[in-house]
This record gives sequence, structure tokens and C-alpha cells, in this order.
Amino acid sequence: MQAKRTVDELFTAALRRERPALARLLSLIERGSNDARSIGRLSFPLSGNAYTVGITGAPGAGKSTLTSAIIGHVRSRTLEVAVLAVDPSSPFTGGAILGDRVRMQDHATDDGVFIRSMATRGHLGGLSLSTPEAIRLLDAVGYPWVMIETVGVGQVEVEIAGKADTTVVVVNPGWGDAVEAAKAGLMEIADVFVINKSDRSGAEQTRHDLEAMLDLSDRPRDGWRPPIVSTVGTTGQGANDVWAAVLDHRAAVTADGTLIRRREVRLHDELRDIVARRLEQRALAMFGSERWESIRHDVLQRTVDPWSAADALLSTIEA
Amino acid sequence: MQAKRTVDELFTAALRRERPALARLLSLIERGSNDARSIGRLSFPLSGNAYTVGITGAPGAGKSTLTSAIIGHVRSRTLEVAVLAVDPSSPFTGGAILGDRVRMQDHATDDGVFIRSMATRGHLGGLSLSTPEAIRLLDAVGYPWVMIETVGVGQVEVEIAGKADTTVVVVNPGWGDAVEAAKAGLMEIADVFVINKSDRSGAEQTRHDLEAMLDLSDRPRDGWRPPIVSTVGTTGQGANDVWAAVLDHRAAVTADGTLIRRREVRLHDELRDIVARRLEQRALAMFGSERWESIRHDVLQRTVDPWSAADALLSTIEA
Repeated sequence: MQAKRTVDELFTAALRRERPALARLLSLIERGSNDARSIGRLSFPLSGNAYTVGITGAPGAGKSTLTSAIIGHVRSRTLEVAVLAVDPSSPFTGGAILGDRVRMQDHATDDGVFIRSMATRGHLGGLSLSTPEAIRLLDAVGYPWVMIETVGVGQVEVEIAGKADTTVVVVNPGWGDAVEAAKAGLMEIADVFVINKSDRSGAEQTRHDLEAMLDLSDRPRDGWRPPIVSTVGTTGQGANDVWAAVLDHRAAVTADGTLIRRREVRLHDELRDIVARRLEQRALAMFGSERWESIRHDVLQRTVDPWSAADALLSTIEA
Repeated sequence: MQAKRTVDELFTAALRRERPALARLLSLIERGSNDARSIGRLSFPLSGNAYTVGITGAPGAGKSTLTSAIIGHVRSRTLEVAVLAVDPSSPFTGGAILGDRVRMQDHATDDGVFIRSMATRGHLGGLSLSTPEAIRLLDAVGYPWVMIETVGVGQVEVEIAGKADTTVVVVNPGWGDAVEAAKAGLMEIADVFVINKSDRSGAEQTRHDLEAMLDLSDRPRDGWRPPIVSTVGTTGQGANDVWAAVLDHRAAVTADGTLIRRREVRLHDELRDIVARRLEQRALAMFGSERWESIRHDVLQRTVDPWSAADALLSTIEA
């Protein structure tokens, strides 16, 4: 039996593209342990090269099918790609097993594709901290493209998808779908709209709704009006158009400096989230400590007032 | 013109029952400034003697009218009483002016009654921190009874009213009022139910609803089944029964040790809230600091990873 490998050893193996090592590192990140910090320190200097694409939309919109079709298109150009499927509602993932993401199994035997689910594991900060860390690792080991697919359009999912370099929002034909997308806050984060299942009736109405909402929104402020692409995920029709739209957006944000600014904002937000989470952890750790019990006792005995007690507790905090 | 008095001077004056000094101290507490801490340190050793009565219920239930009637009853027994009217939705109070609490003005010229509104002032922690501090001050200066009346039944208000020694929940006759009270979480915190405006139709139905909900709830766990008292606030009818029910509850919780346990839990919660708020303040202060800007710059230049940056920032925190 193999001895348990250290984070450093796993990282070196992952750089050689040993998939089990990469999967193990992602599990450690997902768990939010101290190992996640060590991994972050290793990957940070090597990262900053991957381009990230977020794919979001209501459950059933066909995101996985579409993602699979896009993967096929990317791979036909011999580019490697990693996919993170993010599910905030699930307390655990199957790691390599992706539940109902059956279509993606098309690529399961392709060494140029790495697919992985991420769930919350119930720890503080959760996916908003572990997802950027996972992306950075995939970036560091050399995947030029990282796709982030969210399961639904809850607040966490919209936030995560909206932090990609290019965000693709998937809707379906039918009255109201575009309105629902707007309500979920997707108008603000979409760089590319996809009307998937566009062979169904109502596709033109949905396109009209989206155009109307784009006219009303202040999105053109950043000089980019999200194009609307029609696809049929099950046949792969339009996947090349989605890819072309992503490349157009990438060229635009790279040229005008938007990409650098957006990445700076993300890094700033991540630093803020890490600091906030660490303070939370300190407070939680404090409430279980012997020191807390002792000070609490003094307050209940009225020998120490609550403000002085808080001072005494906080003075014990160290970085 | 009088020189500005220090907190110590104001506190000494408040102990002599100088009302302007007491009002000024309550304003400082409400503002959540560092002076609030100084006041807390002065009042804590002198507190622990007052009995607190929370009065809550939907807007329009007649809480102020009922409170006024109870004050009249208490004063007829020559006991002094202080009233805090808590309004989380309002960004500021009128201090002595109590808006529509006109009925309470009946007691405005009575030296044995002190009435005061408390609002949020928009600071961190807000009323959940300033209310216990205000109660402690009124306790320390010698009011044997402190009543806390909330404006509505929002989460903050229910929490505040539920932390009194005895909590009175006011409902009105009419189908559904008891159900609404249950939805707002009032079944769990009520020690005494009052059906105010009980001369209106539907009072018997409301009593029946409350009894049925009490049968279903697990409230008898603490050996006390909340009595249901009928009142007509505008005439004062039943105010003596409410007072008798409060005294009954006080006797019961004093005898079986529940009062001591509840006060210990409250003090514990308050200490926890103070610590949590202080940590929040530190984090906020940090994000505006020069140190933050400098470290943020290093991260954006990729010379420092986010985890090491968080370490560096957190090491600058001092108690």
C-alpha cells in the first residue's frame, strides 16, 4: 500500500498531469482544510494563464449538454479543457462521478478533458472560497481553458458564474424564460446569451425578449453588448457559434483592459473573503475555548462586565 | 453655558435621578459609541435588581395603550417604572418625544415614570446590543421595573421582547390573529397572552385558537402554561389582571430557578454578540487601512498569494 502523499508531492504529481493527484488536491480544497491554503500558496505563482468560462442558467436548460458540445468543439482544436460543475445545494460530490451529467461522460476517456464536481461540504465560506482556489489549481497545472458550470441560478451560483472571464447564460424558448433570467440577476452577468433547445417553438419570442431587456439595461456601459446565440445541445448545433462568441468576448475584454480590471476585482474580493472567513473561524474557535468558559463564568458571577470580558477574550486572538 | 459633562459625571447625576443626564446616557448607548462601553462598565456592578417585562404584538394591537394602562396600575402601588419603546425600523428616535405613543403622555409629568424610545442609528449590532445596555443602565439607577415595548413583530423585535424576564404577547380578537402571532414566532416567547380590544367580536374565538395552539406546542416543557388575559386598553379594563399574571409568572420562574438560568443565557448571548461585533468592526476597519491597500497591491502584482496576504493583514490586528 502506498504511503499517504504530502500536498507538495501531490502538487508535483499534478503538474505532471497525474489525474488521481489532481483529484485528491481538489478534494482537499473542497474540504476547506488547512491543506487548501498550502495548495493555494503552491498554485498562485504558477496561475494567471487560464481563461475561465462560466455557464449558468435554470436547471433543465441543458447546460451540461451544451457544455459537453462545447468541449467537443474545443477538443477538435486540440485544446485541453477542465470543467468544474458547481452544486451549492449538495453537501458532497461524487468526485469523478457526476450524477446526471451523463452527456459529459462522452469525454470521460479523453485525457485532454478533466471534469470534476464541487459541492459545499458545509464549511464556512464554502464554494465562494473553494471555487477560485480550484480554478487556480487547474490553471497552475496547465489547463488553458477552465469551464465553470453551475447547477442552478441561486445566489451563490450566479455569483460564482459571474466571476468567470466570460459568462454564458443559457435560457430556453418560451414565454417568461427571459424574464426569469432577469429576475435571477443574469442580465448583469451575461457576456453571451444562449437560447438552447432553439428547435422548439418560442425561440424567436425569447430572442425578442432578451433584445428588449438588453435595450433597457445599462449593460453597454462596458462597451460590450452580449450576443444571443441559438443552439441545439443534443445535436451540437450552434456549439461552434457559442465558442466563437466566447472568443469574440475574450478578444474585446483583452483589448480594452476590462479583463485585467475584472481579474483584479476578483482577487481583491477573494482576499476580502479569506480575511472575513478567518475572523469568523477565530470567533467560533473562541466560543469553544476554555478561556471563553472561564471568562463567561466571571461575567455570570458579575465579577467582570461584558465589555471587559470581550476585551480579555479578543486580546487572546493571535494570527 | 454648562461645560460638557463626562460619562462619569452624567452617571453620577443619573444615580441622583436627574432625568436629562439619564436621557443623555441613553442617547450615547443608542449611538453605540465607545461611551456605551464606559457606561456599561459603570452600570454592570450596580445592575441585576430590576425585573424586565417585554410587550410585543402586531402594530395596531394596542400595545402602547395597554402599556400605559399597566403603568397606571403599577404607579397606583407607588412603584417606579421605566419604559423603553424599541423601533428597529426607525433610523432615529425623538428621545423624549414618542411619536404616536400619545397615551403614554398621560404619565409624562409623573416623576416615577421614565419613558424613552430606542432606534437603530444604523450601527453594527444595533438594538440587540444597545437594548440590554439601556436596560442595565435603568436597572443600575434604581428602576425596579423596566418595560420593553416593541413597535412590531419583526425578527429583531421578537428577539428583544423574548429576552425579557416576562414576555407579554398582545393579540386582538378576530379570526387569524392568533395564527399570525404563531407565524411570527410569538408562541415560543409568550409568558402571558393578552387579548386586547376584547370588547370586540371574535374575542372568544381568539382565546379558543390560542388555547388550541398552546395544547399543540411544547411550551409546558418549562412548567408554565401562559395564561390568557382579556383587556380593553382604552378603558384600562383588565390591566390589573395582566399585572397579576406578570407577578404570577415572576413568582414561578423565581421559585424554580428558571429566572436565574434565563438571565445567564442572556448574559452569555450578550457577551457573544459583543465579541462578534468587535470582530466585525476590526474587519471593516482593516479594509479601509493603508496596510490593506499595500497588501492588496502586492497580491495584484502576484508577489504575495492571498493566503499569505490574509496572514499579514490579520497579524496587524490588536485587541
